[in-house]
Amino acid sequence: MAAVAGPEIERLIQLLARMPGLGPRSARRAALHLIKKREQLLGPLAEAMRVAAERIVVCSACGNVDTSDPCTLCADPRRDGSILVVVEDVSDLWALERAQAIKARYHVLGGTLSPLDGVGPGDLNLDRLVARVAEGEIREVILALNATVDGQTTAHYVTDLLSPHGVTVTRLAHGVPVGGELDYLDEGTLVAALRQRTAI
Amino acid sequence: MAAVAGPEIERLIQLLARMPGLGPRSARRAALHLIKKREQLLGPLAEAMRVAAERIVVCSACGNVDTSDPCTLCADPRRDGSILVVVEDVSDLWALERAQAIKARYHVLGGTLSPLDGVGPGDLNLDRLVARVAEGEIREVILALNATVDGQTTAHYVTDLLSPHGVTVTRLAHGVPVGGELDYLDEGTLVAALRQRTAI
Repeated sequence: MAAVAGPEIERLIQLLARMPGLGPRSARRAALHLIKKREQLLGPLAEAMRVAAERIVVCSACGNVDTSDPCTLCADPRRDGSILVVVEDVSDLWALERAQAIKARYHVLGGTLSPLDGVGPGDLNLDRLVARVAEGEIREVILALNATVDGQTTAHYVTDLLSPHGVTVTRLAHGVPVGGELDYLDEGTLVAALRQRTAI
Repeated sequence: MAAVAGPEIERLIQLLARMPGLGPRSARRAALHLIKKREQLLGPLAEAMRVAAERIVVCSACGNVDTSDPCTLCADPRRDGSILVVVEDVSDLWALERAQAIKARYHVLGGTLSPLDGVGPGDLNLDRLVARVAEGEIREVILALNATVDGQTTAHYVTDLLSPHGVTVTRLAHGVPVGGELDYLDEGTLVAALRQRTAI
């Protein structure tokens, strides 16, 4: 592309295009929108990003991202320290917190085992998980992993890894999503939902 | 949403959600992506935005955005100063420049006349357009406006506005888009393409 404007705008567009959900065309549109809203959006966003880049750290206990270490969730004394929810990614942690599903502690693996992608146990935050469980306070480990092949492989691996420590390992229920229609569900989900039916 | 992490991350998500093409959910995803790529993406993007917010100005001649005033295009002596391409928005200027369609000067109106949306002549960069034409160097004004009702209304208005100045006013050709299939084109375009047929 010929340089339409100064290199500053080109650089902004190039960096924006590397954000998820933005391609080259939408990055240009976003850049123009930002430039037009210089005072209200571009300046504040630049500052928010600078602060985030400077202050955000990975929690050494659970793998969450926050501006403090240990993170807000690990430091919160009102959370149940006897339950540990294992998730694949910080986004899963956020999803569970948005749902206000449980007031427990978390552990972020940072991925799932995937032999095809070359992700082995050494690439995940597993040593720290075993160390936390070995401390003895945790009674139950809930594996809140994706219901994919890789997620389930990881769940089995973690279960084996934790079995010597005498901790209860559970996983999320399979079933019909709330608001979901049976007609649109796959057979695996229907079979699981029937098998794990509950009394009314 | 419950505060999952510190207010710095929440603020970043909120500002990202105000970018075009990003909603609340994709803003969270983008924020997490940026946080994970702190060194490679978040820091540089923050800096690029800061520089842009600080240095980008609107060209007082044509309405383009750039880091200099007059902008790179207005200051370029190799451009044909006798042709002025009138566009609705900076994004249209960028599109024409990407296509390397013409080496002329531009004039950005900053919108189109739209009585329904309350956009009148006073809201557009029209006085400056008339002043530029009145200077006498410009021989042809090309109205590169959208082929929408508002765009065409604006084209007629600008044509009337410039008629006392003895300048040639032209507009973009209507026709079959390059690579387009006749079967998918609307009737208006087909009629226009036939009417404006050219000798091979």
